[in-house]
Amino acid sequence: MGSKSPEKVPEIRRDPVTGIWSILAVDRSRRPGAVEDEVVRITAPCPFCPGNESLTPPEIWAVGREGGAADSPGWKLRVIPNLYPALSPGAAGKGWRREVKAGLAARGYHEVIIHSPDHRRSLAEMEPGETVRLMRAYRLRYRELAVLPGIRQVVIILNHGRAAGASLEHPHTQVFALPLVPQVLRDELRHTRRRSRQGCPLCAEAAASKSEGRVVAENETWMAFAPYAARFPFETWLMPVRHEPGFERIVHGELEGMAEIIPRVLRGLSRLLEDPPYNLFIHGAPCDGKDYQHYHCHVELVPRITRGAGFELSTGMYINITSPEEAAKQLREIM
Amino acid sequence: MGSKSPEKVPEIRRDPVTGIWSILAVDRSRRPGAVEDEVVRITAPCPFCPGNESLTPPEIWAVGREGGAADSPGWKLRVIPNLYPALSPGAAGKGWRREVKAGLAARGYHEVIIHSPDHRRSLAEMEPGETVRLMRAYRLRYRELAVLPGIRQVVIILNHGRAAGASLEHPHTQVFALPLVPQVLRDELRHTRRRSRQGCPLCAEAAASKSEGRVVAENETWMAFAPYAARFPFETWLMPVRHEPGFERIVHGELEGMAEIIPRVLRGLSRLLEDPPYNLFIHGAPCDGKDYQHYHCHVELVPRITRGAGFELSTGMYINITSPEEAAKQLREIM
Repeated sequence: MGSKSPEKVPEIRRDPVTGIWSILAVDRSRRPGAVEDEVVRITAPCPFCPGNESLTPPEIWAVGREGGAADSPGWKLRVIPNLYPALSPGAAGKGWRREVKAGLAARGYHEVIIHSPDHRRSLAEMEPGETVRLMRAYRLRYRELAVLPGIRQVVIILNHGRAAGASLEHPHTQVFALPLVPQVLRDELRHTRRRSRQGCPLCAEAAASKSEGRVVAENETWMAFAPYAARFPFETWLMPVRHEPGFERIVHGELEGMAEIIPRVLRGLSRLLEDPPYNLFIHGAPCDGKDYQHYHCHVELVPRITRGAGFELSTGMYINITSPEEAAKQLREIM
Repeated sequence: MGSKSPEKVPEIRRDPVTGIWSILAVDRSRRPGAVEDEVVRITAPCPFCPGNESLTPPEIWAVGREGGAADSPGWKLRVIPNLYPALSPGAAGKGWRREVKAGLAARGYHEVIIHSPDHRRSLAEMEPGETVRLMRAYRLRYRELAVLPGIRQVVIILNHGRAAGASLEHPHTQVFALPLVPQVLRDELRHTRRRSRQGCPLCAEAAASKSEGRVVAENETWMAFAPYAARFPFETWLMPVRHEPGFERIVHGELEGMAEIIPRVLRGLSRLLEDPPYNLFIHGAPCDGKDYQHYHCHVELVPRITRGAGFELSTGMYINITSPEEAAKQLREIM
């Protein structure tokens, strides 16, 4: 970490054949652990640990520091800009979506939420009060970024373990505020809209998961289930029971339910699969002012215990070697 | 390998929220190396080496065995059914595409092409005559499978290296004959059709790659370039110069050009990145009898030197830390 040479503004490009958007962020190649086979020896102090605040960009927000100065120890949760951002702060230029071959600045925000001062304790191991604090931070950053000019989608992502793409060990979550609605969200919105005449497809999935033995866990406001067409072994989705398109509108009670069910499922996975690497992310309706009443916000939790190969990349289909019914059963039993 | 318990027919499921298709192939969990952290010690003999033909299912086709019996040594290239197939032979039932929640049999074909008797020599290291033989086998299997009832798409995939998903070391290629046009192909077809008024988008990409310094290699019939919106560092696309939608219609001369340029680019990558893991796959127009004149078949070659993380999975976008212009320059220089 430490000092940086002049920033190169990342660029968003759209492939003229596939239609896939890629962010060209060459600065991120300097990030520790960026390359697969690189052996990362972090001899330097952890930039996310208390006392090392000067190693990160100036903080955006922190909780728990009683009267202390910004960027000093004493915090319980801390939000900072990503040192190697995939997006460069500022509003997207007008008309950029049409000029697909023009090499457009990737405008947006890329933040990091440091879960706690504790370098070792993962989300699965946090105390209830801490997880509620973290979920509040998720919602707060979501709300604040969603209303900024040019932002159309906010995505919150937690990568746990090297094999799931985490480059730093200290538990943290990334927040991306994007100037476009990314393809996966677009597909979900289109697909659920098409099926929404019979009611919300995700509400229907929740009901089906009960009758088909795919429920993993429940509490008053949330439920967790293995999705019918799970892409990965032990893939689990978590959703508020109340139909709600936007994550930013999750209310009191629901936030606590979320803070209870996520670590509970993570503990089950950890016991069953011996602390597997995983990706966890929140999908909510875009913040572009359009109507997405048919959509239902949710959390997707994907353990990365199998190796992706050419088939997935080449087809966009997945080959799953564990049935969701069996995965849900095993998870329920161990919990 | 060896004996198998009764087959469980794989199932194709479509997610009601995302629209993503997944193949549920629980039998594949018994495949060696299926699970990420499993330490694979293949003390048993390699099933793809000469002399061990009895360890594979009966062969479909072989080249070079002069008068010898099937499933005996002496072959130079061998095609067999996958022992752990993701698809079960036979035609897809009628109407299966509509009943998305019905748990449909994954009908199709999943074959393995064993490149040569040599356990060690990768495609990059094969002799010109051998690579021509391999490309001929690609086209032959493509042609034969494409005309079978119920098959809509054939995809040919080579995974090289454990990190790219190869579960057996002996160089081989997989052929999938699918009962549907998978999402990635569907997206490419839709996207290129929309842009085809100004001519073929891939032909235009080839021209642009010349003027923008993204050409990697060329011969009389093929060219290789770093795509404008490359998703991965050193991602390279290879295409016949002549506009041709269907891979099965690649002609004499083009096949030889393909057999020359692929190993040449692979040798460049191997020198530059020290034998990186990679996925290589062929995308051609579907074989469902519709008109895809706007499409241009091609090969995508993706070194897997960076770690995928939650962002790609969550958004369908990619973050690439190496610009295609720089990647093409480095590859050209080392070749």
